[in-house]
Amino acid sequence: MLALHFDGSQARTIDLPLPQTTADTAVVRVSLAGVCNTDLELVKGYMGFRGILGHEFVGVVEDGPAQWCGRRVVSEINFACGRCESCNRGLERHCPARTVMGILGADGAFAEYVRVPVRNLHTVPDTLGDERAVFSEPLAAAFEILQQVTIDPGSECVVLGDGKLGLLVAQVLADAGARVLAVGHHPERLALLARRGVATVLAADWTPIPFPLVVEATGSATGFALAVAATRPRGTLVLKSTYADNPRVDLAPIVINEIQVLGSRCGPFSPAIDALAASRIDVEGLITDRVPLAQGPAALEAAASGASKILIEVA
Amino acid sequence: MLALHFDGSQARTIDLPLPQTTADTAVVRVSLAGVCNTDLELVKGYMGFRGILGHEFVGVVEDGPAQWCGRRVVSEINFACGRCESCNRGLERHCPARTVMGILGADGAFAEYVRVPVRNLHTVPDTLGDERAVFSEPLAAAFEILQQVTIDPGSECVVLGDGKLGLLVAQVLADAGARVLAVGHHPERLALLARRGVATVLAADWTPIPFPLVVEATGSATGFALAVAATRPRGTLVLKSTYADNPRVDLAPIVINEIQVLGSRCGPFSPAIDALAASRIDVEGLITDRVPLAQGPAALEAAASGASKILIEVA
Repeated sequence: MLALHFDGSQARTIDLPLPQTTADTAVVRVSLAGVCNTDLELVKGYMGFRGILGHEFVGVVEDGPAQWCGRRVVSEINFACGRCESCNRGLERHCPARTVMGILGADGAFAEYVRVPVRNLHTVPDTLGDERAVFSEPLAAAFEILQQVTIDPGSECVVLGDGKLGLLVAQVLADAGARVLAVGHHPERLALLARRGVATVLAADWTPIPFPLVVEATGSATGFALAVAATRPRGTLVLKSTYADNPRVDLAPIVINEIQVLGSRCGPFSPAIDALAASRIDVEGLITDRVPLAQGPAALEAAASGASKILIEVA
Repeated sequence: MLALHFDGSQARTIDLPLPQTTADTAVVRVSLAGVCNTDLELVKGYMGFRGILGHEFVGVVEDGPAQWCGRRVVSEINFACGRCESCNRGLERHCPARTVMGILGADGAFAEYVRVPVRNLHTVPDTLGDERAVFSEPLAAAFEILQQVTIDPGSECVVLGDGKLGLLVAQVLADAGARVLAVGHHPERLALLARRGVATVLAADWTPIPFPLVVEATGSATGFALAVAATRPRGTLVLKSTYADNPRVDLAPIVINEIQVLGSRCGPFSPAIDALAASRIDVEGLITDRVPLAQGPAALEAAASGASKILIEVA
């Protein structure tokens, strides 16, 4: 099968053997996949990953338990052991023995077929097309914030960053009833949020004022410092981004203002799928281009050149 | 009056005018004061402070409202405006218009007399001697953690750092019922904790394993990194220290493990005074030396040379 493989130095679309089902797994024929910034970090060496890239996809179960075969699905990306203390506490996404699809020790979905544990699968409703369903994974990451922070109707928050994740986070918080201010560098991306009723401002025109809730989704040291400055005393700062280099960070305001900093990673699929099916989140507006799997490296290049979401067409 | 004054380049004991009471303030004759690491940072330029240093003290009210005169007192150090949104929310310690005794815009207690707002005063019980009462402020900072985190009996936590604050924090958490492991570099300081039933280990002999609650009280970038490594997924990391330079920080584990980082600063005086009066916390063991106010700079030098608590004898 065709797959976009990273060998530690180069990402290439090559021919690889089909994955085989094992106990409790299914093989899914991938229809459409999405490029995430994490993929771009991985090909720069993040996590030391080697293998087939990709962890955002939608497809149809080709092989596995009979009740799953033929179903259109998306899949959670953390493959937990199911037996450890974390798993017993319901924290499968934090299982220390986990592999992660296309990120850590497990092949990903930029391929004609991908193998995933059955318990990671979610059925896609018929009303939800592939082009929207492929956003389940990143949208779940945005919904994770609602698991960590209570959003009261009208609660004020600011989202820093108008990248793919920032645009999803701002919409999820607004959908939950918050009054959101989105700060970014790209007028055309902020316009997408403005159409959804989110207040927006260009970073160049914005001076931080204290908010009770701030979400950092820029992934830059500058964004982190702005986010700290925009969090009011005893306020909450949610970190959705990882940072490529270890940035120099002034931790003093976190201590002095007794800020709560919450790391936030993968999230629950069900509310994301529901929101996509109900068209409560604009994801089409995030799509910059669609690239065939055979031209996989070009998809990564396009994503790295500052595009918003690049989709990889597999089937 | 004699006072240890910092002019922006030098800390000297000099003669200064007596403070006068104003509306809602009292003038306290200082008996005993304590040197804090923050004082050492201030004379290195932190906060750009100019004035009389010192924010840990015990004394007797000399002038002010009649019902306070003659009382032995300690004082909270944040002088709030009492009128702003933060004050109305009960967050006087975060009042944006506040001054802070000996730290920000208000003279401190390394002096024969200090002026403080009456509402900041706490009466010292007769059973609590000056040498213990002078620890009210730093112990309150340790008690702040109990305002921020729920300590269940037997809950496991690690305290990094065996400086003055680390020793107080470890005792407060143990007193609250936690099973505490204290990690430090000084066998003689850890021994103080061991005598209180706290488990201890030398940092050189310790490899971080995941704890649900970690308190960082080293103030070093190395300590911060260790603290992050010792916080289990979805665990809590309390930052009690500020950091002199902006350290390079790897934020990725905070995001990946969805760690809650809580900045923690000043705390409530009442539980601290109660714990001191009930002898539930060993503070005498922290005292390295007592230095007369006239030799104030020597007190700072002694504190900077790695001593534990240096007390300044005023009256």
